Amino acid sequence: MTYNISKAKVFTLNSNPELAQEIADLLGVQMGKSSVKQFSDGEIQINIEETIRDYDTYLVQSISQPGNQHIMELLIMIDALKRASAKTINVVIPYYGYARQDRKIGDRQPITATLIANLLETAGASRVMTVDLHADQLEGFFNIPVDQLSGIPLLSDYFAEKHLSDVVVVAPDNSSALRARKLASRLNVPIAFMDRRTYEPESPHAVNVIGEVEGRRAIIIDDMIDTGGNLMLTTTVLKEHGVKEIYACFTHAVLSGIAVERIERSSIKELVVTNTIRLPEKKQIDKITGLSIGPLLAEAISRVQNKESIDELMH
Amino acid sequence: MTYNISKAKVFTLNSNPELAQEIADLLGVQMGKSSVKQFSDGEIQINIEETIRDYDTYLVQSISQPGNQHIMELLIMIDALKRASAKTINVVIPYYGYARQDRKIGDRQPITATLIANLLETAGASRVMTVDLHADQLEGFFNIPVDQLSGIPLLSDYFAEKHLSDVVVVAPDNSSALRARKLASRLNVPIAFMDRRTYEPESPHAVNVIGEVEGRRAIIIDDMIDTGGNLMLTTTVLKEHGVKEIYACFTHAVLSGIAVERIERSSIKELVVTNTIRLPEKKQIDKITGLSIGPLLAEAISRVQNKESIDELMH
Amino acid sequence: MTYNISKAKVFTLNSNPELAQEIADLLGVQMGKSSVKQFSDGEIQINIEETIRDYDTYLVQSISQPGNQHIMELLIMIDALKRASAKTINVVIPYYGYARQDRKIGDRQPITATLIANLLETAGASRVMTVDLHADQLEGFFNIPVDQLSGIPLLSDYFAEKHLSDVVVVAPDNSSALRARKLASRLNVPIAFMDRRTYEPESPHAVNVIGEVEGRRAIIIDDMIDTGGNLMLTTTVLKEHGVKEIYACFTHAVLSGIAVERIERSSIKELVVTNTIRLPEKKQIDKITGLSIGPLLAEAISRVQNKESIDELMH
Amino acid sequence: MTYNISKAKVFTLNSNPELAQEIADLLGVQMGKSSVKQFSDGEIQINIEETIRDYDTYLVQSISQPGNQHIMELLIMIDALKRASAKTINVVIPYYGYARQDRKIGDRQPITATLIANLLETAGASRVMTVDLHADQLEGFFNIPVDQLSGIPLLSDYFAEKHLSDVVVVAPDNSSALRARKLASRLNVPIAFMDRRTYEPESPHAVNVIGEVEGRRAIIIDDMIDTGGNLMLTTTVLKEHGVKEIYACFTHAVLSGIAVERIERSSIKELVVTNTIRLPEKKQIDKITGLSIGPLLAEAISRVQNKESIDELMH
Amino acid sequence: MTYNISKAKVFTLNSNPELAQEIADLLGVQMGKSSVKQFSDGEIQINIEETIRDYDTYLVQSISQPGNQHIMELLIMIDALKRASAKTINVVIPYYGYARQDRKIGDRQPITATLIANLLETAGASRVMTVDLHADQLEGFFNIPVDQLSGIPLLSDYFAEKHLSDVVVVAPDNSSALRARKLASRLNVPIAFMDRRTYEPESPHAVNVIGEVEGRRAIIIDDMIDTGGNLMLTTTVLKEHGVKEIYACFTHAVLSGIAVERIERSSIKELVVTNTIRLPEKKQIDKITGLSIGPLLAEAISRVQNKESIDELMH
Amino acid sequence: MTYNISKAKVFTLNSNPELAQEIADLLGVQMGKSSVKQFSDGEIQINIEETIRDYDTYLVQSISQPGNQHIMELLIMIDALKRASAKTINVVIPYYGYARQDRKIGDRQPITATLIANLLETAGASRVMTVDLHADQLEGFFNIPVDQLSGIPLLSDYFAEKHLSDVVVVAPDNSSALRARKLASRLNVPIAFMDRRTYEPESPHAVNVIGEVEGRRAIIIDDMIDTGGNLMLTTTVLKEHGVKEIYACFTHAVLSGIAVERIERSSIKELVVTNTIRLPEKKQIDKITGLSIGPLLAEAISRVQNKESIDELMH
Repeated sequence: MTYNISKAKVFTLNSNPELAQEIADLLGVQMGKSSVKQFSDGEIQINIEETIRDYDTYLVQSISQPGNQHIMELLIMIDALKRASAKTINVVIPYYGYARQDRKIGDRQPITATLIANLLETAGASRVMTVDLHADQLEGFFNIPVDQLSGIPLLSDYFAEKHLSDVVVVAPDNSSALRARKLASRLNVPIAFMDRRTYEPESPHAVNVIGEVEGRRAIIIDDMIDTGGNLMLTTTVLKEHGVKEIYACFTHAVLSGIAVERIERSSIKELVVTNTIRLPEKKQIDKITGLSIGPLLAEAISRVQNKESIDELMH
Repeated sequence: MTYNISKAKVFTLNSNPELAQEIADLLGVQMGKSSVKQFSDGEIQINIEETIRDYDTYLVQSISQPGNQHIMELLIMIDALKRASAKTINVVIPYYGYARQDRKIGDRQPITATLIANLLETAGASRVMTVDLHADQLEGFFNIPVDQLSGIPLLSDYFAEKHLSDVVVVAPDNSSALRARKLASRLNVPIAFMDRRTYEPESPHAVNVIGEVEGRRAIIIDDMIDTGGNLMLTTTVLKEHGVKEIYACFTHAVLSGIAVERIERSSIKELVVTNTIRLPEKKQIDKITGLSIGPLLAEAISRVQNKESIDELMH
Repeated sequence: MTYNISKAKVFTLNSNPELAQEIADLLGVQMGKSSVKQFSDGEIQINIEETIRDYDTYLVQSISQPGNQHIMELLIMIDALKRASAKTINVVIPYYGYARQDRKIGDRQPITATLIANLLETAGASRVMTVDLHADQLEGFFNIPVDQLSGIPLLSDYFAEKHLSDVVVVAPDNSSALRARKLASRLNVPIAFMDRRTYEPESPHAVNVIGEVEGRRAIIIDDMIDTGGNLMLTTTVLKEHGVKEIYACFTHAVLSGIAVERIERSSIKELVVTNTIRLPEKKQIDKITGLSIGPLLAEAISRVQNKESIDELMH
Repeated sequence: MTYNISKAKVFTLNSNPELAQEIADLLGVQMGKSSVKQFSDGEIQINIEETIRDYDTYLVQSISQPGNQHIMELLIMIDALKRASAKTINVVIPYYGYARQDRKIGDRQPITATLIANLLETAGASRVMTVDLHADQLEGFFNIPVDQLSGIPLLSDYFAEKHLSDVVVVAPDNSSALRARKLASRLNVPIAFMDRRTYEPESPHAVNVIGEVEGRRAIIIDDMIDTGGNLMLTTTVLKEHGVKEIYACFTHAVLSGIAVERIERSSIKELVVTNTIRLPEKKQIDKITGLSIGPLLAEAISRVQNKESIDELMH
Repeated sequence: MTYNISKAKVFTLNSNPELAQEIADLLGVQMGKSSVKQFSDGEIQINIEETIRDYDTYLVQSISQPGNQHIMELLIMIDALKRASAKTINVVIPYYGYARQDRKIGDRQPITATLIANLLETAGASRVMTVDLHADQLEGFFNIPVDQLSGIPLLSDYFAEKHLSDVVVVAPDNSSALRARKLASRLNVPIAFMDRRTYEPESPHAVNVIGEVEGRRAIIIDDMIDTGGNLMLTTTVLKEHGVKEIYACFTHAVLSGIAVERIERSSIKELVVTNTIRLPEKKQIDKITGLSIGPLLAEAISRVQNKESIDELMH
Repeated sequence: MTYNISKAKVFTLNSNPELAQEIADLLGVQMGKSSVKQFSDGEIQINIEETIRDYDTYLVQSISQPGNQHIMELLIMIDALKRASAKTINVVIPYYGYARQDRKIGDRQPITATLIANLLETAGASRVMTVDLHADQLEGFFNIPVDQLSGIPLLSDYFAEKHLSDVVVVAPDNSSALRARKLASRLNVPIAFMDRRTYEPESPHAVNVIGEVEGRRAIIIDDMIDTGGNLMLTTTVLKEHGVKEIYACFTHAVLSGIAVERIERSSIKELVVTNTIRLPEKKQIDKITGLSIGPLLAEAISRVQNKESIDELMH
């Protein structure tokens, strides 16, 4: 398959240069030339090193760790593209960080996920492309078009090819049931839920399994894995309930703190993630399988640029 | 308790005049004078009949059926308040309709819940007060302060006073687990989930119960009851699984189509709702218990007007 | 004549599907596929059923009865088109309702016609095309281009072909003199005015004819006919002043309440209207002649799409 | 009567300093200190010379000749007030110039009256107070509150005290009928209209009188008198139709070009105007009677500042 | 060299019609047809006399004396272009007036240079092209792309061709050092500075020369010459310090008040300026050499329209 | 002196907690309670821990290293204050970082200083208070009031008390002449300039001294010291030109990279800075004298809150 995306340029920033390069390669285009220079006082300076007047631009940057740095890079680059007269500024954010701050928990909290949407629009973004938002409602935080792609088919296809038997999909959290349902429907297997009674201590006593899991192979699914605390808790409880083998899959591999060590030491057989967040070498352990989201993003960019529907990439 | 909300006026439109009056009575203030006149061509004309220059105004209107009519009334009244130099325009929307259209399902859909938030801001709203949004993320659709109050304590207290035994709280949908968890924690009882495999047909074959329900009293909870189709399905399946008594509670009593007839004919023992949506007389059947959200809203308005925290009214 | 409007799609909503179809036929294009589904709770859901990425879209919808419903349809559809990445969203509003609320009568009234203009811009409209606004100043309520077409040539040509003698054009209201003047100039006949001394009662005592009408054929003209009350009054007074035959013409046939019955019973010989508002079958009586505004709108859309001047369609 | 407008300051610019001073005197406040310095290159520099932090400010400036200069003064002063942290910036524009450019005549014209409204809002105006707009619809060009006061009672009271007999109010133009109707109702006299068939040449052949005027005293009324061309035409035609005495009244005395000479030479007995536009000494001829709009504006400012209704000042 | 700027039109207003014509000629296009009509009351009316639907438009207007008039012309024309559906509105402002009001000197001053930027964006400008802003930071007053071209190469080339010996470039003001540095580097000569101790009196005692000037030829450089007061002072002091010949160059020839007389009488040998501001005939004295900025602007417009970089025109 | 700032709260974030505490102490108020929690994935969560409904809030945060982190803290906190219904959000930014990116150097660069201004307004800031902006023009990047305080009197007073003889103030850069002029005028001493011919290499050959410095004591002044490279160069050149003692003063002590080591090793006798940027202990060497900007900020906050002029704090 060859793509034809004339009058478009793909740019990257520092979160995910390999993924951006993969997308450019798949699209058969050269990466746009730009640089991010960091001064000794920590301020960054961005330069675009070729003309982009009247080009459609696609800018690849995840809001992954260090998130504040990556957001500022993104905003400054958007400003540069705007002032350099880009025709459109399509922001490709494979991992939309701060997404868990999407509502006020108490009376006096920010809604940072909305704030970031507003900042992106203020800076001058024309459109956002992203993958597996923490909640679908985040699309509504924007007044510009948002194309949310689904990473579940990628994860589902991977497991389907394993031809595992006696599988149950497990939602590790009261809010992840819909995602588990989607994977279960694709794999045509039943589901179970973890019911967390309280959120404070990471204690097994606070969690219960609802649904049949004994003697089965569990595939835990959620949108992201951060410290791995909840995953460990889920694993422990599932083991106590007689699960015979545990897989887990997440679109976004935040893997902060001691997450990788925890997984290494755990009874999890395999953890499957995508590269919406760059997986640094030190996190690439045997138990972790990385799938590339690049082909999905390249396909979506090609369709957007060629004015075709991306409907089937959204489910 | 007496409230003191000087320099504030409470106005109502057509969705919920009794609730607005109850709030005004609780606050010890006269209702603001205004009128909504409908011409024979269906256009409405709104007049404010007393000066509101520099007053804080509280405008009570649910986006309940007929929703489009009620939204337009609301927007036009906000415009009138703005042009009449109100100091602030606090929009009290007990039921925020169109909330289920909070994300794109396919490639080419509106996000009507965001659109309405934008329209309210464009018209001139200063702040929104509402109850039990369909998803908490809707707060992030606004750039003005949103005070979302929780109706769950009202429902929970009602059931707590019944001193029922063997209770299980049931989430009727893969997306209502969090709400069920809150009620279960307040009542200190376990929970179960309905797992819907497909969404198209209203068929029992598409649904499964996950969790222990046999021999128990179920309290089904969700934010709203619309046609009652899903509730009927849940009831049928719960009965098949040996539930001995079924209660249900919802903050918002949409009760459209044949919902009331269905409830009448069903094996549900009692359905508890609030008056965020006005319950017309013909829907007031014995099985349906109505609780008033008025005291909660009056308390919140008083605190906002007196610059106190409403944190404890949000959970 | 054949039009060429490549990369453009015409959509309709519920106010005027036949007119939209006529426009599409005249332009030689297929109607864009979309649906408006109404749920039992009255909320509507709009789907666009074919890709419109980077298309110029023309959306036909009058703000006719039920106006609030039609406005909300329009706003939601615009939101959908925006989020689906339409290149431009050209809103064709043959009848711009709520236009009479274009100023504050008292100290505390909305200006709903401005509000609706703001709502359309907030939702994402790129341009508005409309016919015979209640006041030309409404163009200034928008910050996007507004193309106001004139329906008077259509009405004038109809009467010119009748070759009537002794004609006087009558302005039925102190504010309709300019419109009457335009028709009179086209037909090369004199004009007369109705002078209303008070607006409250629909009483002949409140009205006077100014100008020569005795023994003449009167053609009453205004932008819209609503309940017909003013028309009846005008007719009565004209008859008292010895007018021998009465015609009336209006671009917008609101015809609310008992308007049609009144016309049926009146001494009016013929009432001429256009289909900017859909004329339901029960209103299609012999005395009412309907002219189609479709060719004018098709011509204007074609010119806009082909970047030609529409100046001559505006007078 | 004493006013109490604490925490408010009245400022003037160059269009109308005497009127601003009169308003300040009536309100019993000192004029706010500010200066407008013009450099030799024509640029102006504005300074506010006392603190206005958190004050309500009232800024008096008409958009009278030289209009472009006066608009820029106004915008720059609003910017200064905003940056100096005024609490509110109430722009008092006795004469809103450019009001005749309130719609597109052809396909490619500006709507300058809307543009100016937008510029005022962009600069930072909080509210507009004005007198007798050219068309009431101009209120809708603003999204901030607009208080339009009526100068007709002032003009009407003046004529009422003359106790003239056989009066007919004459609308000099097809678009001034509503204004004539208001004056006629207040004076309880009949009205007549001038019907202009074409607008190009200033020729009597293009104009006709509709209504009874022979042997009567005519009071011509319109919102403004500019070059006086139309007034001269009206006067000539009225004389031809046997009018015995001609008065004329206008809220806004633009009086550009040879207007004053024309009036001097004409058969008009008396021309009554207000000082919404400053009447320079050379225009103060015997035939022109000037009434002060100051008391009306002072009363309105006082009410706005004291949060009272101004409804009765609007009609 | 031939340019190709299809689908673009160049328009002019009243500040600089000859320059606009020169640009159009260089680009090989016809000037767009438009008119600015001034009424006797000073209001202006702008008409665009050919269709511009979907054209890129370039509008040439300096904010030169009379600045307020020229700004209003510019804003009204932008509004007209917007409402006439121009594709882009590129505002070419060779001289951006009011640029010295770019910060608050005291606590309560406007920042007029920012205000004008905001007004241009509000009216509908898509992009700004300008020459030698008073401070580079003014670019940041805009949120639309700003292309600032440098006039220094034009001035520098002129002096280079003179092959003068013993040259020193003189910065006449503490804030013009950067500009002097650029010219000195291009001519490869040393620089000196005038150090003004106070700003109030135009007295030589308040100024000192810093750097070696004795026996040299001075070229004074700044962005603009207004009244010439500072230039006279500089000249006097330089002469006192033994300078043997004085040249001066400025991009913008404001030349207000008695500037030309002063130059005529002064010991300056030659004053070099460009036509960013139209030099009226009475200011064209022998000592003043005018260079045309037209080729630079034509080159830049051509590159913008052809989507090429203008980087080398900016330094 | 006692301050009275009722209904106001002072909050801090992480850049400068000691300075914020000092301000609160000087104002005689408790610090507002809030927390910034950093998760292991680097995301931060901000909570405001006491009610601020209708309070004027003052939020102290410099955009100092790590700048991106500090900007994001600031934006998120502003969002929280807005959603918690603060009456005003006054952002006190002692050091406004990224200020050097205040214009485009090349054709395709961001203007980050403007971007940050826009982001602050989007988040919801009501007003900005800051000290010694890199260029005064940055005030114009905001459309909200900006109060820029001057740190020069603080530095000047410090040197005045030393009673040094033979002083010359040195501007280390072609763009710092105005600042040097202000200090020189306050100390009543002459000035000299460093003229940098090229900017690339940090070589003495590229720099020249203009003005008399031999045998004098030099006080170098600029707004900020970053890496110290330019200061070292200036010092070297001044020594070569026979300066006998070198002092330096800067409002903002960025001191990045090896700046402190350089100063330690240099021939500079004393470096004077303020605490607009927190000086960590490891940078507190004997040669560096720190002055507190706290009293200036406390005085300014008090005046703003009490609606008094701050004019004299700006120069």
